[in-house]
Amino acid sequence: MRVALAIGDAGGVGPELAAKLLTHGDLQGQDVVVVGDASVLAMGARHAEVDLDLPVVSADQVNVLPSGHVLLDLGNCPAGGTVLGQSSPEAGAASLQNFATVLRLAKAGIVDVVMFTPFNKHSMRLARPSYVDEIGFIDMTLSSDRSGREFNVLEEVWNARVTSHIPLRQVAETLSVERILGSLRLTAEVMAGAGKPGARIGVAALNPHAGDGRNFGHEDDDIIAPAVEAAVAEGIPATGPVPSDTVFVRATRGEFDAVLTMYHDQGQIAMKLMGFDRGVTLIAGYGFPIVTPAHGTAFDIAGKGKADLGATLEAARLGIRLAKLNPASGNTVPLAEGWATDEVAPSRSAAE
Amino acid sequence: MRVALAIGDAGGVGPELAAKLLTHGDLQGQDVVVVGDASVLAMGARHAEVDLDLPVVSADQVNVLPSGHVLLDLGNCPAGGTVLGQSSPEAGAASLQNFATVLRLAKAGIVDVVMFTPFNKHSMRLARPSYVDEIGFIDMTLSSDRSGREFNVLEEVWNARVTSHIPLRQVAETLSVERILGSLRLTAEVMAGAGKPGARIGVAALNPHAGDGRNFGHEDDDIIAPAVEAAVAEGIPATGPVPSDTVFVRATRGEFDAVLTMYHDQGQIAMKLMGFDRGVTLIAGYGFPIVTPAHGTAFDIAGKGKADLGATLEAARLGIRLAKLNPASGNTVPLAEGWATDEVAPSRSAAE
Repeated sequence: MRVALAIGDAGGVGPELAAKLLTHGDLQGQDVVVVGDASVLAMGARHAEVDLDLPVVSADQVNVLPSGHVLLDLGNCPAGGTVLGQSSPEAGAASLQNFATVLRLAKAGIVDVVMFTPFNKHSMRLARPSYVDEIGFIDMTLSSDRSGREFNVLEEVWNARVTSHIPLRQVAETLSVERILGSLRLTAEVMAGAGKPGARIGVAALNPHAGDGRNFGHEDDDIIAPAVEAAVAEGIPATGPVPSDTVFVRATRGEFDAVLTMYHDQGQIAMKLMGFDRGVTLIAGYGFPIVTPAHGTAFDIAGKGKADLGATLEAARLGIRLAKLNPASGNTVPLAEGWATDEVAPSRSAAE
Repeated sequence: MRVALAIGDAGGVGPELAAKLLTHGDLQGQDVVVVGDASVLAMGARHAEVDLDLPVVSADQVNVLPSGHVLLDLGNCPAGGTVLGQSSPEAGAASLQNFATVLRLAKAGIVDVVMFTPFNKHSMRLARPSYVDEIGFIDMTLSSDRSGREFNVLEEVWNARVTSHIPLRQVAETLSVERILGSLRLTAEVMAGAGKPGARIGVAALNPHAGDGRNFGHEDDDIIAPAVEAAVAEGIPATGPVPSDTVFVRATRGEFDAVLTMYHDQGQIAMKLMGFDRGVTLIAGYGFPIVTPAHGTAFDIAGKGKADLGATLEAARLGIRLAKLNPASGNTVPLAEGWATDEVAPSRSAAE
């Protein structure tokens, strides 16, 4: 079982977090292939004040990787070419290539967990203006016809959402019984795969006071309630619609293991207040887990050795746990020649 | 300066909170007219284990009220006729009458602050199915042509919202530059009136990541940003649009005194997680403050003497502070004959 770790944005805390993670006790004895630029990782090690001396492998050696930690040096971002605490097209281009590379390694069955330290969307867009978000980039890179779903994991509370990066105006019309039921099934399946079978899912209402008996909207009665009933009939312990201003309060009291929210901010407002910067983002649905700390590049403290390893370590633990509990899923597409230096996949909006 | 205190739902914690408040040191020396049923207040005093012996006045004596605490006994809800911990049409009808009465007292200039302990919407609807919410009821009772606005106050963070009890589907189309600017002006005005001139207002974005440069919706750029600019040009220290999943985190760190949210749950999700059950709801815009604890009737602990006075006391303090800082606003409409026994005003939806 092997982890691929993509080094995040060279201007942020990603390099030092990657270096620090590799020296943590939990990662010793674990096969890891680090993907990025050797000089950036070395810089991260200096900032984190840790000693790293990883064997370097090249792209044509990935089929016979030695055990332990190794570095696939893409030589794509000389550390001197970027400025700490700032976004840059150089760092963004390297992030995109690192990301694409770890995804391809997973698709080829060479690694079982994909992980990355924080990327910076602004850098990525300086390199590629059409970049929208991770899910779109993953879909394109993997030529996947089934989008994954993002979960936010904060200690004992998981959050999944039915819609994500769309205008609030479109949320209500995007909901359907099938879509919510699909989210409930995937949530139950992923949580079971994470060692939480029978997870209790609180389903957030769409409208104020869950529509207040249709006084403030009909979707809670006509779409969410039937989806919850259908899930319960399938044995998924779902409850709802629960007014969204109480569902997280109840989850923090231990009533729910997960909350399914209908739109992006409904969950993010709560999770961030609950300290989600200490949490983990998991992208599931591709046959292997993709994990990253929930916080960003933290430009204000980049290079100062202050970045807290907590969320990055939790991300690694979750990814490894998921991969161990779930058998390999047959990602064995062979790598094409020149695979690591190919142009990285266009993001979704550019391709559509 | 006199406070009118309406006793809340007889089945909930309202009676005991009213009784406990009246014995608190902060209320001694303060003129208060309590409005409700004498037997319900006596029951509350027993549950709260406090001694109350208030002079009783009748509806035709309100123009010459003695100083100190008095009870306007409406005899509208014999305590034996309701069951603790349950909603009932009897309790609901009494709540509506108590509420209408304190509002009329304020409109007549007899009191300067309106306060109530928790009502139960279910009881109110058992008595009057068309009841929608407080604002609608107040508008009808006062024959007001200008709706008030609700503020949620939790320690040092205030929350006001641009839209409230409407379907989420209608939020985006309901927003306008004028409407948001109006909310910013009112928030600044009310907070100045509460002794917080120059309050810094964080304005929540509508869409995920504040629209992410129009990738996820245009309203943040086209509606919210211009409203914030216009407010700043008027000297109101507003900032935004701030992504709604960080605006409350920043407020809790002291960056903002108030957060203006675009829709109900955007603020309520945050405020409830932050412990808003300890907070105060303020309804402003009618020339006198209307205050109530943010929590509900708490049927599960009603009558057990366990209800915490904290939020109720904070509500009283805020109402009194606001009334003292702001001169009387000319509410001097004389009370009509039979004013306290009139049918209470129909709620808005019934009248429309």
